[in-house]
Amino acid sequence: MSGTAGQVIRCKAAVAWEAVKPLVIEEVEVAPPQATEVRLKILYTSLCHTDVYFWEAKGQTPLFPRIFGHEAGGIVESVGEGVTDLKPGDHVLPIFTGECKDCAHCKSEESNLCNLLRINTDRGVMIHDGKSRFTIKGKPIYHFLGTSTFSEYTVVHVGCVAKINPLAPLDKVCILSCGISTGLGATLNVAKPTKGSTVAVFGLGAVGLAAAEGARIAGASRIIGVDLHSKRFEKAKNFGVTDFVNPKDHEKSVQEVIVEMTGGGVDRSLECTGNVNAMISAFECVHDGWGVAVIVGVPNKDDVFKTHPINLLNERTLKGTFFGNYKPRSDIPAVVEKYMNKELEVEKFITHSVPFSEINKAFEYMLNGEGLRCIIRMEP
Amino acid sequence: MSGTAGQVIRCKAAVAWEAVKPLVIEEVEVAPPQATEVRLKILYTSLCHTDVYFWEAKGQTPLFPRIFGHEAGGIVESVGEGVTDLKPGDHVLPIFTGECKDCAHCKSEESNLCNLLRINTDRGVMIHDGKSRFTIKGKPIYHFLGTSTFSEYTVVHVGCVAKINPLAPLDKVCILSCGISTGLGATLNVAKPTKGSTVAVFGLGAVGLAAAEGARIAGASRIIGVDLHSKRFEKAKNFGVTDFVNPKDHEKSVQEVIVEMTGGGVDRSLECTGNVNAMISAFECVHDGWGVAVIVGVPNKDDVFKTHPINLLNERTLKGTFFGNYKPRSDIPAVVEKYMNKELEVEKFITHSVPFSEINKAFEYMLNGEGLRCIIRMEP
Ligand SMILES: NC(=O)c1ccc[n+]([C@@H]2O[C@H](COP(=O)([O-])OP(=O)(O)OC[C@H]3O[C@@H](n4cnc5c(N)ncnc54)[C@H](O)[C@@H]3O)[C@@H](O)[C@H]2O)c1
Ligand SMILES: NC(=O)c1ccc[n+]([C@@H]2O[C@H](COP(=O)([O-])OP(=O)(O)OC[C@H]3O[C@@H](n4cnc5c(N)ncnc54)[C@H](O)[C@@H]3O)[C@@H](O)[C@H]2O)c1
Ligand SMILES: [Zn+2]
Ligand SMILES: [Zn+2]
Ligand SMILES: [Zn+2]
Ligand SMILES: [Zn+2]
Repeated sequence: MSGTAGQVIRCKAAVAWEAVKPLVIEEVEVAPPQATEVRLKILYTSLCHTDVYFWEAKGQTPLFPRIFGHEAGGIVESVGEGVTDLKPGDHVLPIFTGECKDCAHCKSEESNLCNLLRINTDRGVMIHDGKSRFTIKGKPIYHFLGTSTFSEYTVVHVGCVAKINPLAPLDKVCILSCGISTGLGATLNVAKPTKGSTVAVFGLGAVGLAAAEGARIAGASRIIGVDLHSKRFEKAKNFGVTDFVNPKDHEKSVQEVIVEMTGGGVDRSLECTGNVNAMISAFECVHDGWGVAVIVGVPNKDDVFKTHPINLLNERTLKGTFFGNYKPRSDIPAVVEKYMNKELEVEKFITHSVPFSEINKAFEYMLNGEGLRCIIRMEP
Repeated sequence: MSGTAGQVIRCKAAVAWEAVKPLVIEEVEVAPPQATEVRLKILYTSLCHTDVYFWEAKGQTPLFPRIFGHEAGGIVESVGEGVTDLKPGDHVLPIFTGECKDCAHCKSEESNLCNLLRINTDRGVMIHDGKSRFTIKGKPIYHFLGTSTFSEYTVVHVGCVAKINPLAPLDKVCILSCGISTGLGATLNVAKPTKGSTVAVFGLGAVGLAAAEGARIAGASRIIGVDLHSKRFEKAKNFGVTDFVNPKDHEKSVQEVIVEMTGGGVDRSLECTGNVNAMISAFECVHDGWGVAVIVGVPNKDDVFKTHPINLLNERTLKGTFFGNYKPRSDIPAVVEKYMNKELEVEKFITHSVPFSEINKAFEYMLNGEGLRCIIRMEP
């Protein structure tokens, strides 16, 4: 047990006091973990779009003051009552969705939508007692996605913690907590292209490029990237993307363009934009008889997916996935191993790095559409 | 070789001279099979909805005079040039869709949508030379679905003929040519329920009941039948259906009713109505995380399938199937064996039987919604 176990820890955290305002590094108190919880020392964290969406709080329930952050790598500092799976010193990735190992979803081989711990963007407190573990001078600060990794220490439910190989460099594998695993798993676990197949990827952000990386790993012979911004294409070549389509360059619909390019459609497609029209195109561009389209992007509240049912009858498959169908505790350690085996290339997703004190720069990079992932180093 | 090989055969056929008018038994000339073709002696045929739709010619391209019929069992009379897979005397089922064994679809393990021989409802002639093999006093009569089984003899492309166990009773297994295999295969090949799972079947016609039969064979613990006609429910019990929902009996949508009945949704659903609202309900009533919905019904031209994309993201799968994903030549012989092994019960689908001379009675039974399948005996 570390000397701090059972004690309140005072440390630095980047607090979002209100929507859209720069985060402020504050001294916070982090309470000890309760039953089913662990306290983590975060070493590296990175910024994902979801942090930015909730910080902007457009169309989301605003919940402030809050500590954002959900892609990270760290070390267990102490564990709460009854926690036997983890011990101080374990290297871990906190995950924004969990695995209780007890509900129907956790027991199903197919689902990772744990009834107890599936993502909840509106909850700002711990499940155990409905309270926050963060305070500033006694005043509670809300959690985010059960992770709140923009803090030197955080408290997380044990079901949301993946224990990984201690040899894995946390400044690299921290980005496997969210977006990269989402895209990678969407391809490897859900679309499952076979060697030599053709794959279309809609949206060449971090998630889409991770989906392309999955297609590259699976041995796809042709990976068609689709994005509205042609500048995304150059970078995408590094991720195995062989062909590019910018819908704006064509009179015809993207699906028609892709069907023509491929003589009937692609074998697999991955939608990683969140745009409902891209979802429809991604479905309609797969080959009849065997094509599979996988929806990854998070749609808007009022979106409607529309297609003629004959597109289904002609033996196309449409699926969606959450977090690439990975179960956080059972499956993420093996994703880290894929990196350790040099099967998966993680470095190419990391385009920036800043010390914790400059966390607001990471927000600027993302808002300007510069780069893919910015690593935030907790210790300078 | 039979004595008739290479000769024109004169025999009886039921000719549809115009839409909606009763068929007329006429003496027709049946030309010998050309290259890639076989001539069959039909012993038993049955009536399927598709015959009736095209006979009514509502919203279809009318093509008359025509010989309908596509569910049948018979014996090879003679074969055309280059046909080596079949020989006179073989017991066969003609199939309305084919398998050339050479195109990308035939080579794919997943597809049965043969490029060359997939269903074509508008073609009334043979592929080989664009001509009909049927004439009456020299005037051509159109084929239907490449099968035209309402004739004592018919000519069919070899790719549309399944060679079956000669011990199988053709008066029973003839109905495996179309609707029954479609529903059965939709469940066994596409939805693939595991033992103990819950299955919803929308539409309790012959196709839906065959889908239920598939669920029974797969060991489903609960089979929920959905139909607008409550009288269909009684019969459905014979096919393993355990629960019934008539959408008209509920204020809530069927999908809500089923989600409540099952505590979250069914594991698998099969849509066998052709109604687009049933397709949407069938999709939205499957469980998140693992549910699979399979569309079987043939929609109308202007139908639009609509759903909120979040239903996909929550890890539901939507697929469609044609002819239950069976490849006619490779797979249908094994379906006949399922009947021979007593795994599949075929008799319960056969509710009527008439001699060929009374074929119009079979149309009446179907139009009145009486029974499921009427066997038409070519020899009285
Ligand atoms: N299902 C999950 O578990 C999960 C997890 C993380 C992220 N996501 C979602 O994945 C999506 C992608 O995330 P990201 O971080 O890579 O986003 P991003 O904004 O970096 O990338 C999206 C890309 O899509 C492109 N795009 C937008 N509309 C398009 C259209 N109609 N056609 C073609 N391209 C289009 C944009 O130009 C952009 O390059 C988002 O919707 C995000 O919410 C889902
Ligand atoms: N995909 C294929 O390969 C294939 C092959 C053969 C038939 N089909 C199609 O399968 C469908 C069923 O064929 P069938 O011969 O069993 O038809 P059928 O008319 O005998 O049965 C359809 C049943 O669906 C019910 N129904 C209609 N609308 C409904 C709704 N909204 N909700 C619930 N029930 C509803 C009807 O009351 C009827 O009992 C048809 O659309 C047919 O064209 C498809
Ligand atoms: Zn769980
Ligand atoms: Zn994220
Ligand atoms: Zn073929
Ligand atoms: Zn039929």
